[in-house]
Amino acid sequence: MTTSERPSAMAYSAENCTVGRAMAVLGERWTFVVAREVFNGVRRFEDMRERTAIPRQVLTDRLRLLVEQGVLEKVPYQVTGQRPRHEYRLTPKGLDLYPVLVAIAEWGNRYLADPEGPPVEFVHRDCGAEVHTRFACTEGHEFDAVRDVVPQPGPGARLREPA
Amino acid sequence: MTTSERPSAMAYSAENCTVGRAMAVLGERWTFVVAREVFNGVRRFEDMRERTAIPRQVLTDRLRLLVEQGVLEKVPYQVTGQRPRHEYRLTPKGLDLYPVLVAIAEWGNRYLADPEGPPVEFVHRDCGAEVHTRFACTEGHEFDAVRDVVPQPGPGARLREPA
Repeated sequence: MTTSERPSAMAYSAENCTVGRAMAVLGERWTFVVAREVFNGVRRFEDMRERTAIPRQVLTDRLRLLVEQGVLEKVPYQVTGQRPRHEYRLTPKGLDLYPVLVAIAEWGNRYLADPEGPPVEFVHRDCGAEVHTRFACTEGHEFDAVRDVVPQPGPGARLREPA
Repeated sequence: MTTSERPSAMAYSAENCTVGRAMAVLGERWTFVVAREVFNGVRRFEDMRERTAIPRQVLTDRLRLLVEQGVLEKVPYQVTGQRPRHEYRLTPKGLDLYPVLVAIAEWGNRYLADPEGPPVEFVHRDCGAEVHTRFACTEGHEFDAVRDVVPQPGPGARLREPA
């Protein structure tokens, strides 16, 4: 193509992009892997260490970040005969990451699984059938096709300062 | 709580986790921000540079990673009177990341937007209503509740070596 036309997005600032902000929280391999562990019911530091082999300091840092961000909360527990400890639980803000997890797993399962198939599948509790994400609009239409979804400037859109 | 019971996920290896593998591709702030730009129609290096302020070398590296991973492809173009260049387009594998983008934007818009609201909204092409992700199973049931989705070992699940 020979056009020199500029995409409309160029008119808008990306500085307040909430995808960028979300990825600043999630956008590091181990951070979301830690969230995945908690979604899988692995809530304790030593269990996460054992299953993920994340370096201790990295795991400590990522857990702190997720607690600071209100994605996880620390809940005390005590194993009989041992000292009190705490485990990590998802807050409502953390639970709201579940569609992100399922969407990422769906893509990973499609393109990055070993030949024998995905290690984890998400199924519908009621019927046991495999779950995937799809799109729905507030008018109640449901669809899968990417082309049916259009990004448009929202109430917080900012025009860019001319460079 | 005083249980010392271990979560069932502890029995399984996380080494072939496709979420971990997906995040190894996406799990770095700038990588997904680059994908976001292309989804927004910003396909050219200098335009991405200008809009995102990603350091040149970082942008070069992330674009290379996404091309190597088959998420983006380079397509040549020429502006009349200028030297031939190339721009970046989403491959089918890249387009399949759209539900991930929408799910991340949905979470970011809910929790990380400025007071005036989200900078970008995703709307249904046909009716203009706001789009969100939801869950559907292969039996055709549709639902939003996280509790209706259950992770279970898939065909590629591996039991962990006893530590």
